[in-house]
Amino acid sequence: MFIMHLGFATIESGLSRSKNTTNILFKNTIIPAIGILIFSLWGYNLMYPGNLFEGSFIGFSGFGIAAPEVSYNEQRNYTFWSFFLFQAMFAATATTIVSGAVAERIKIWSFILFSFFLVGIIYPIIGFWTWGGGFLQKMNVHFYDFAGSTVVHSVGGWSALAGVIVLGPRIGKYVDNRIIPLPGHSMPLATVGVFLLWFGWFGFNGGSVLSANPKLVSLVLVTTCLSASAGAIGALTTSFITTRTIDHSMVLNGILGGLVAITAGADKMNPSEAIIIGLTSGTLVVLAVLLFDKLRIDDPVGAISVHLICGIFGTLAVGFMGDLAEINGARQLVSQLIGITSTGVFVFPLTYLLFIIIDKTIGLRVTAKEELEGLDVSIHGMRAYHIDNAK
Amino acid sequence: MFIMHLGFATIESGLSRSKNTTNILFKNTIIPAIGILIFSLWGYNLMYPGNLFEGSFIGFSGFGIAAPEVSYNEQRNYTFWSFFLFQAMFAATATTIVSGAVAERIKIWSFILFSFFLVGIIYPIIGFWTWGGGFLQKMNVHFYDFAGSTVVHSVGGWSALAGVIVLGPRIGKYVDNRIIPLPGHSMPLATVGVFLLWFGWFGFNGGSVLSANPKLVSLVLVTTCLSASAGAIGALTTSFITTRTIDHSMVLNGILGGLVAITAGADKMNPSEAIIIGLTSGTLVVLAVLLFDKLRIDDPVGAISVHLICGIFGTLAVGFMGDLAEINGARQLVSQLIGITSTGVFVFPLTYLLFIIIDKTIGLRVTAKEELEGLDVSIHGMRAYHIDNAK
Amino acid sequence: MFIMHLGFATIESGLSRSKNTTNILFKNTIIPAIGILIFSLWGYNLMYPGNLFEGSFIGFSGFGIAAPEVSYNEQRNYTFWSFFLFQAMFAATATTIVSGAVAERIKIWSFILFSFFLVGIIYPIIGFWTWGGGFLQKMNVHFYDFAGSTVVHSVGGWSALAGVIVLGPRIGKYVDNRIIPLPGHSMPLATVGVFLLWFGWFGFNGGSVLSANPKLVSLVLVTTCLSASAGAIGALTTSFITTRTIDHSMVLNGILGGLVAITAGADKMNPSEAIIIGLTSGTLVVLAVLLFDKLRIDDPVGAISVHLICGIFGTLAVGFMGDLAEINGARQLVSQLIGITSTGVFVFPLTYLLFIIIDKTIGLRVTAKEELEGLDVSIHGMRAYHIDNAK
Repeated sequence: MFIMHLGFATIESGLSRSKNTTNILFKNTIIPAIGILIFSLWGYNLMYPGNLFEGSFIGFSGFGIAAPEVSYNEQRNYTFWSFFLFQAMFAATATTIVSGAVAERIKIWSFILFSFFLVGIIYPIIGFWTWGGGFLQKMNVHFYDFAGSTVVHSVGGWSALAGVIVLGPRIGKYVDNRIIPLPGHSMPLATVGVFLLWFGWFGFNGGSVLSANPKLVSLVLVTTCLSASAGAIGALTTSFITTRTIDHSMVLNGILGGLVAITAGADKMNPSEAIIIGLTSGTLVVLAVLLFDKLRIDDPVGAISVHLICGIFGTLAVGFMGDLAEINGARQLVSQLIGITSTGVFVFPLTYLLFIIIDKTIGLRVTAKEELEGLDVSIHGMRAYHIDNAK
Repeated sequence: MFIMHLGFATIESGLSRSKNTTNILFKNTIIPAIGILIFSLWGYNLMYPGNLFEGSFIGFSGFGIAAPEVSYNEQRNYTFWSFFLFQAMFAATATTIVSGAVAERIKIWSFILFSFFLVGIIYPIIGFWTWGGGFLQKMNVHFYDFAGSTVVHSVGGWSALAGVIVLGPRIGKYVDNRIIPLPGHSMPLATVGVFLLWFGWFGFNGGSVLSANPKLVSLVLVTTCLSASAGAIGALTTSFITTRTIDHSMVLNGILGGLVAITAGADKMNPSEAIIIGLTSGTLVVLAVLLFDKLRIDDPVGAISVHLICGIFGTLAVGFMGDLAEINGARQLVSQLIGITSTGVFVFPLTYLLFIIIDKTIGLRVTAKEELEGLDVSIHGMRAYHIDNAK
Repeated sequence: MFIMHLGFATIESGLSRSKNTTNILFKNTIIPAIGILIFSLWGYNLMYPGNLFEGSFIGFSGFGIAAPEVSYNEQRNYTFWSFFLFQAMFAATATTIVSGAVAERIKIWSFILFSFFLVGIIYPIIGFWTWGGGFLQKMNVHFYDFAGSTVVHSVGGWSALAGVIVLGPRIGKYVDNRIIPLPGHSMPLATVGVFLLWFGWFGFNGGSVLSANPKLVSLVLVTTCLSASAGAIGALTTSFITTRTIDHSMVLNGILGGLVAITAGADKMNPSEAIIIGLTSGTLVVLAVLLFDKLRIDDPVGAISVHLICGIFGTLAVGFMGDLAEINGARQLVSQLIGITSTGVFVFPLTYLLFIIIDKTIGLRVTAKEELEGLDVSIHGMRAYHIDNAK
């Protein structure tokens, strides 16, 4: 699962311009480091405060981290420390999603400050609602999000949307009434990233089974893989129809969309349902990318389309497809809507406000000169590439 | 094991020219997606049709996929869904092998159409013969192919050979009586690919033990690793002797050759035998690459040398080395020859015919203009690299 | 764990100049191949000679490799072959560390010859002392090195230091009284390397538990991850204070420093102690890199700072922090000092002598002409990159 952070680092740098490559790599390296440290200091105890806070909106069980005498998850045949590490990685993932959307123009210390709040306060509270015993988990028909379509991906997606709106588009992206393509600098890097994410997702979803039930784990791997594959086909078809190109970067994002969407119900869907979810997600990603560009919401890597749109769709799908919809009927759909809405209503305004406050105080965006020169040289004093290239 | 598909994507793009990089990455991304979808729709049931078709040439148990009430592989302590996913990955691997050999000049939709037939019809039939209960598995001394030297690699290799012959060499490869080197565009990318394949092979061969016998798994990891290592040494030595260069790309292909060859008998060889198989394979790869170039069979990445030649050699080796040769004597060698021959006699003419039909109908090869411009720009409308490079 | 060798290949090539990329990739590919072959032929039996040699300085149980009837590690619930493979990978790792430090100027056959001695003789003897039943393991309070801060990393580091001193700095690195930066050619490649090493370290340290105790394994993963994360923060802070730059390559080396240091006591530290070890290591790496540059010890990738300095620090830390220091008090610190010192006193002079002998006989360093031209063209007759780059 850890390898997903390398996946994000490579896809985000591959899909953006090479003059900002070191900056993106730096952000994606420091985020998991910050994430795990914060989770060991207080984040975990904010997300899993224990039985005392059952069904509430917020809870906290103190600073520091230590294995309880009787493990919280003992009944799930899982050890405390693995569970802790797993959750810390999830927290860092939500932040990494933002990194891609705000790339190429955000101030580095401002981004780190934002990450601090997202991974240290906002994410753990949302996580508590759904997984740590909070109110969404304790509804009569409880909100179901298997491995984080909402808890991880849409939290990242809402924050990314807020950040992009406050920051504004990159210089040169929207000129007069035209949308100017600013192509990513390395398709191999981006492709490596998607494969690593796909691979890491097996751990992400497979590990979320949190049990020693190998049959369920392997079913989850199959639904995950089918949805990713169908996402590729959905995106290829939709982008070929809408733009008449065989757009490899759309296929890559289609795969990610399929992965994000299946995440909410990977253990509740059968193979056919997984394929339907994937095909739909691949289509949604392409349409969303085109739509956001029309709305002049400049997301260099398509993170909002992938994580927010497909995160919402996948979570919703649990309400009308698969085992839970069959058992609970419309009540499950209502619970899914409550979960999606309460998460969005909490995260989007809060992160929007946070970005505004950062902007008004220490500043959010680099200067035009720094942006044009590229963040690698202007901020890090170095270039990402010194290649002795032959023809 | 899934990571092998990233390995193929990176080695094939690294060893070919950068003007075709996006095209290769696209092919190698879409193949596993197609492979798993086809296997879930009908491929698996063509390869494992059940007891009814035992010992025959072909069988089929219907469309769709669902775990049987009593698992087909229950006795092997393995779950149905893992087994399914594993087999789907194998099927995609056979197709990916072709991708490298026909790179830089094949039409994209024609290749996808071919993949459809290979992964959906030809591969499952061959797989059925050897692993699904077909006639090769039911011979008195049964044909033995542990993890696919023949079933996966030589099937890919025969198809690749057919494709290369029908397509012809790349423009500029053979001029007058000279062989012009068209060097790959990124040695790091190619090296990453070989390491990932080596790593993935641990899953490929290790996972093929299909049992909870950890002792056998770990022996298989050792024979796999020794053969790969000896393949590197064999190729280094042979290429230094024949061409007086320290050729890193030959070493990379030597490793792959060692991996392919040990695959047929990874659980039947002791460490010394694994080393002998690796050394021989490394040597064979170098000689085969030189030979195919003399024959003007233009295989940009050396796929035919690696997968066909070493696949045949490794399968044959089970007939004269290791446990089975000791137990069954010459009868094992005869069975291996039957398996190798029947696979080749079925796959090569069939795929040759298929390529011819595609060529005569929708066309197999891009125009000379497209080829010279590069497939990235002419087909995908984009370039793989936009690097702001510093000296 | 195998994937660590890809990590070393990518970080070392990423942090050095592109004219030597193929050479570095070649070295890092051939080393694990040589390592595993040597370990199967005699290395393993030099490191684990059996009970006969208990408590001594050297032992040997013959050539070849075969699983014992009753496994040496049976009581640890681990199979012989996995253990063998694991140890062979460790041996190759020690050699790979040297590769980075001597990069861009060492003769290829001389380096292979040196590797032969290091992996085949020196490393197994040191390994025997601490892990194979030798005198360090049999002291009253035995020297403790959980997964090789000293046995693997400082052995590599001492050898690297010897090599760099004998070789001298690269042409153009120290001119008059100035230190000229020779920047690495690809930050993505270097970053990929660090992530892969971090990922592989989970196997390295996690696998070193050599038991089926999942609780301990997962604690080890947490301490490993916390130390790496704190290493990043320590290096970022220290480099920002000392040089006023946000230096991504220092952060990368800080992570590696944290990983190296925690390796000696990953199973004996609690989370807070792991964070302290990481922060200190990150700081040490930055200071050491600056110091070595002042001393004109030219180590292109910072291998000596990471592996030697942090290897020593981490091993020492077991003597004054964590469970063993609590139980054994100052006696543990003495044992750690004995282990560190005896390893250094054995390895540094011996490898120094070895490099001198190689230098005086077959020669150690390439010619100035070859160095300036780059080893890829002058030695391998090829270039690493042929990129059709667009603006």
